[in-house]
Amino acid sequence: MIAVDWGTSTFRAYRLAPDGAILDKRDAQLGILAVKEGRFAEALESQVRDWLEAGEAPVVMSGMIGSRQGWKEAPYAQCPASAREIAASMVEVRWGNACSAWIVPGLRCRDAQGVPDVMRGEETQILGAIDDVLEHSARVCLPGTHSKWVQVEGGRITHFATYMTGEVFAVLKAHSILGRMMTDADFDPVAFQSGVLRAREPGGLLHHLFGVRSRGLLGDLSDDDSAAYLSGLLVGNELAALPRLSGRVYLLGASPLTRLYTAALKSYGVDTKILDADAAVRGLFNLAQTLPRS
Amino acid sequence: MIAVDWGTSTFRAYRLAPDGAILDKRDAQLGILAVKEGRFAEALESQVRDWLEAGEAPVVMSGMIGSRQGWKEAPYAQCPASAREIAASMVEVRWGNACSAWIVPGLRCRDAQGVPDVMRGEETQILGAIDDVLEHSARVCLPGTHSKWVQVEGGRITHFATYMTGEVFAVLKAHSILGRMMTDADFDPVAFQSGVLRAREPGGLLHHLFGVRSRGLLGDLSDDDSAAYLSGLLVGNELAALPRLSGRVYLLGASPLTRLYTAALKSYGVDTKILDADAAVRGLFNLAQTLPRS
Repeated sequence: MIAVDWGTSTFRAYRLAPDGAILDKRDAQLGILAVKEGRFAEALESQVRDWLEAGEAPVVMSGMIGSRQGWKEAPYAQCPASAREIAASMVEVRWGNACSAWIVPGLRCRDAQGVPDVMRGEETQILGAIDDVLEHSARVCLPGTHSKWVQVEGGRITHFATYMTGEVFAVLKAHSILGRMMTDADFDPVAFQSGVLRAREPGGLLHHLFGVRSRGLLGDLSDDDSAAYLSGLLVGNELAALPRLSGRVYLLGASPLTRLYTAALKSYGVDTKILDADAAVRGLFNLAQTLPRS
Repeated sequence: MIAVDWGTSTFRAYRLAPDGAILDKRDAQLGILAVKEGRFAEALESQVRDWLEAGEAPVVMSGMIGSRQGWKEAPYAQCPASAREIAASMVEVRWGNACSAWIVPGLRCRDAQGVPDVMRGEETQILGAIDDVLEHSARVCLPGTHSKWVQVEGGRITHFATYMTGEVFAVLKAHSILGRMMTDADFDPVAFQSGVLRAREPGGLLHHLFGVRSRGLLGDLSDDDSAAYLSGLLVGNELAALPRLSGRVYLLGASPLTRLYTAALKSYGVDTKILDADAAVRGLFNLAQTLPRS
């Protein structure tokens, strides 16, 4: 089969053996925003035409390719959802003579106040992780631009919540007065941790953010440490807002981020276990198993 | 006397009669960032040379002109501080034959955890307001890019806290994924209020922010309403973080903002009274009264 992780800015394709082993891999800066005039079939063929011509099938794709701006919208499936339930909501696209691919839907849920939340792509990573280690009850965190905290119960994704932590850090660093004092110094873990601890004190995030500046102006925080301290404030605020943070958290993501979250969670006495960051491929493989054999 | 409110991006000068009445006024886009190579004396003369030549004195200036990037740094005075105590920390600059001006220092304080906060310019506005209406105990809010919440006791500024509310709104609108869906529609007060109420629910600001997007994607929030809802989330988060919000709050600022804060505070059962937004001029006048007559 061909597994495709197709996001806003990147395209990743994997050729998988019948047992799920990765036989080959293609990467490109060909996210959906780089595809003009809806030419998604051509974009896909430009990357993996040889695999398709060799008869590799099925093609299963997850990520923003299923959004309104993607190839074809795959409406969000509703939580709670198992791999089988998500697979049942996959959307097919056809092109050329007899070419076809499946798009994995995103997930949606509502919190106790009725406010909705959505994910698109992360559900596939979780499904790859569920298969291996998350058979029972588990709390999974996928840190990043939009961090996801996901509750898994008996093989189903029951609920999740998104935090804009990574994006807020990026825009404050690049565009706010806080970024003006920041340097390119190495990220200091002690400054990060002091931001995490500050987030547990009274005052609220908007006040704590100004503290990056006032501490800098009065010499309490060096310019070199201010980016790490800001990052700690934001990650710490995310953790402080979580209900009932205890026990173990499974982390799914790239290693610099999972290390930071492990350090931050330690200050809450929470143990972490880092899951395989390539879970998306296994999730796509698992979803493909539910398709009828052609 | 000549009262000058000299900020990062704007310059405002007032010629005042001995009783404090405004005789004349000059405005220019000549903030401290627009002054090259430290030529502050020339910049000042370019605006009010005729007043200076007529012998108008003293000249008292507040705002970022007293920052490290300004004419001369006027180190922050320490809270609690009265008008007299702030005046005693004014810094003099001299130029030309016999020209001189006074720069008002900013204020600093530390919270219960020892984290510092600073203001520069707002203290002068408060001193103008104290004189008239704030003789006793009062809580004053100056909404804006960096909102200030200030406690006044018996004519002294005893403590304050800054919230980056306005700047976070501006950078998220201009540079985050949330801004992409926003339109130039009129600001809807109902959407604003629903953001204020959302901020009181569990989840935390970073999660509530993502709700602007998820509610938009699922049709719970129109593109036209999303900027007002985001503004409500942020102002609401600021209010939710305040200790013991009750009684009356004095608002000092421009009218669209003070109207928004009045609406938001009403949902907390808090009464507001709007102070004269030109308080800075009166504050400068009050400070000038402490100077020895020449």
